Amino acid sequence: MNDQLIKEIMSEVLKKIEKPIGKIETPIKQVVVNKENEKYNKQSLVENQSNKQFCLTEFVDTAIGDTIGLVIANLDHSLHEMMNIDKKYKSIGIIGARTGAGAQIMSADEAVKATNAEVISVELARDTKGGAGHGILILFGAEDVSDVRQAVEITLNDLNRTFGDLYINEGGHLEFQYTARASYACNKAFKAPIGKAFGIIVGAPAAIGLLLADTAMKSANVEIIEYWSPAHKTSHSNECVTTISGDAEAVKQAILVAREVGLKLLSMMGGTPISQTTPYI
Amino acid sequence: MNDQLIKEIMSEVLKKIEKPIGKIETPIKQVVVNKENEKYNKQSLVENQSNKQFCLTEFVDTAIGDTIGLVIANLDHSLHEMMNIDKKYKSIGIIGARTGAGAQIMSADEAVKATNAEVISVELARDTKGGAGHGILILFGAEDVSDVRQAVEITLNDLNRTFGDLYINEGGHLEFQYTARASYACNKAFKAPIGKAFGIIVGAPAAIGLLLADTAMKSANVEIIEYWSPAHKTSHSNECVTTISGDAEAVKQAILVAREVGLKLLSMMGGTPISQTTPYI
Amino acid sequence: MNDQLIKEIMSEVLKKIEKPIGKIETPIKQVVVNKENEKYNKQSLVENQSNKQFCLTEFVDTAIGDTIGLVIANLDHSLHEMMNIDKKYKSIGIIGARTGAGAQIMSADEAVKATNAEVISVELARDTKGGAGHGILILFGAEDVSDVRQAVEITLNDLNRTFGDLYINEGGHLEFQYTARASYACNKAFKAPIGKAFGIIVGAPAAIGLLLADTAMKSANVEIIEYWSPAHKTSHSNECVTTISGDAEAVKQAILVAREVGLKLLSMMGGTPISQTTPYI
Repeated sequence: MNDQLIKEIMSEVLKKIEKPIGKIETPIKQVVVNKENEKYNKQSLVENQSNKQFCLTEFVDTAIGDTIGLVIANLDHSLHEMMNIDKKYKSIGIIGARTGAGAQIMSADEAVKATNAEVISVELARDTKGGAGHGILILFGAEDVSDVRQAVEITLNDLNRTFGDLYINEGGHLEFQYTARASYACNKAFKAPIGKAFGIIVGAPAAIGLLLADTAMKSANVEIIEYWSPAHKTSHSNECVTTISGDAEAVKQAILVAREVGLKLLSMMGGTPISQTTPYI
Repeated sequence: MNDQLIKEIMSEVLKKIEKPIGKIETPIKQVVVNKENEKYNKQSLVENQSNKQFCLTEFVDTAIGDTIGLVIANLDHSLHEMMNIDKKYKSIGIIGARTGAGAQIMSADEAVKATNAEVISVELARDTKGGAGHGILILFGAEDVSDVRQAVEITLNDLNRTFGDLYINEGGHLEFQYTARASYACNKAFKAPIGKAFGIIVGAPAAIGLLLADTAMKSANVEIIEYWSPAHKTSHSNECVTTISGDAEAVKQAILVAREVGLKLLSMMGGTPISQTTPYI
Repeated sequence: MNDQLIKEIMSEVLKKIEKPIGKIETPIKQVVVNKENEKYNKQSLVENQSNKQFCLTEFVDTAIGDTIGLVIANLDHSLHEMMNIDKKYKSIGIIGARTGAGAQIMSADEAVKATNAEVISVELARDTKGGAGHGILILFGAEDVSDVRQAVEITLNDLNRTFGDLYINEGGHLEFQYTARASYACNKAFKAPIGKAFGIIVGAPAAIGLLLADTAMKSANVEIIEYWSPAHKTSHSNECVTTISGDAEAVKQAILVAREVGLKLLSMMGGTPISQTTPYI
């Protein structure tokens, strides 16, 4: 009976302490807080300006991947000069994240298609909170703050989609991104030809990423645009990143085959790689 | 009764296994061991040279942030050449850490003010044990080992202060440093004007750091000295680092406003950011 | 009785949840899966081609340090060009890992001695899954796929040996590698003189690595080949890496003294540093 009891309790305890591996911890508390604030703010906007709103007009929202969106209506003059940003961008929008890069870039690409904001810069940190990949800093610029705010909002809202083909397990990660028509964010970050179908194939550790590059190139008639490896262009992340362009069907086909192979290979290094949201390609 | 018992045990267990997030794990065991050794060594120094002392005259002490202090009385000749260090520095003092950079640099700044040691080099690793920031390697140089030892000791002893305005939560971190009179460590690391009030403002993820830069510049009449971002000067950390100089009150004011905004923003990405010791600014 | 029971259960629970610090988590599940597949494949090979074998002829095996070995029989033409690899290497072998660098390079060194494969490139990522060091990507090249496959296999099989002098605790890590006769992998990665005794000395945080460099140079008549620090050549890892060459006995002696000092120093920053397998030097 004693043993039975112990077993029972142990199973209870272990259920509570077992962390699922491979899922980015969504900052639940934060989301709840935001949602509450949002509601609160919406209510209070009717009545009067809420304290939070007033103090932090620059804050837009947070999203998956420890992503935060901010806006600065009038960038300080001396900082503007120090950052070497074109003078025409009075307002800037900021997307920052601890995890990701491809996802945020692809979502930012949708944002520049839909707004008057332009992409000023894309910088990749070495991050992912101890993982093998990047974090990111994207700057949008416009004359008017409403344009960059809209760009930031569209990007944040689109992230649930673009995190769909990010797969993680304890061994590493895979990322796939696809667009039928690349725009200026993909061009700034990866030299994607504007207006053409474009895909991003990432594997970590880099060994897997390299094999996926080879797999993709052999599975369809696509053009290789860039190839990044730990010592070249990746901020020393443990990834190979391959970008491809060409006919829409061909790009998609190349990605799908690479994804199939990637999921098999990465599962050799741990459990089944888990999509962060829902695959979209 | 069974259920009651289970609840009781669970609460006990969970109390034991819950790790506080946002506090750097001070290596407790190590500190205890050191203190014991110290006592032991002090005792044994009266009687005879303890084994530990004899073997590791180079070891000075450890401190917060997984920081270690070492000295080399006579740096090996061929290593000296390989490191391209000025010949006049026969002895070198070493500060190394897994977490931090600003804190160690600011404490080293106090050390060079108070000793004959000079700062040879400041190198920033991409570290913080899976966090978004840096680790560090600082070298002091002097003709005499007692000078570099003193510099190392002062630095280590000052770290409890300079870790006071380092705030961490699961989303990222903030760091603020202030001195009324910058010296050669701040100058070497950040080009701080010698003898003038000087401040360091760090935010991670970088998006927050950039907004803090803008906030600081707008809140007081200060001069921007440097602006670092993931792709520029930060060893690919996910930070923006801004350094400012000017009138003492203005520099302090700029930091205090940035700190207030930073704590609000970072709390949007997780729990309340926690000071590592006690705020000093 | 209640208290006694709680104590009993607590001890059971804590036994289960306490993770040993300092030991790389060998991907046990994966190894088991592989071994099972291997067995299965060997059986099925007699009867018919197994599904797994068919889909992933490129997969060789995994090993300690989250290492994976792959081969590509005919590297895609446009990728080949993009990677700027010599045309004579039709086939490439790939070693990739999340943890390590020295170990994989030293094992690859044995592989090139024993096969017709050559080392095309060695790239060091900033990784170790949140630790202070590197991950790696090594490429072998040959005209024939059997040559690169053999090189990959030899490397993977040798890793249990070369992980023997990798010591880890919560403060950092130490790594020591020794060969009586360096070959082309050590030469490509560290400029080791071919055919001479060669040693690698790594300490993290970098402060310890620097002291070990000094210790090694003073303990035997060896020549310093390279000295790496966070800002120079290390992909911003928090390590100092020193490579030495000379008479076999001298190189060994220098490493052994550095190892002794390193283990003492690193234990000041945490628990006893633990060898990942069995020391071999």
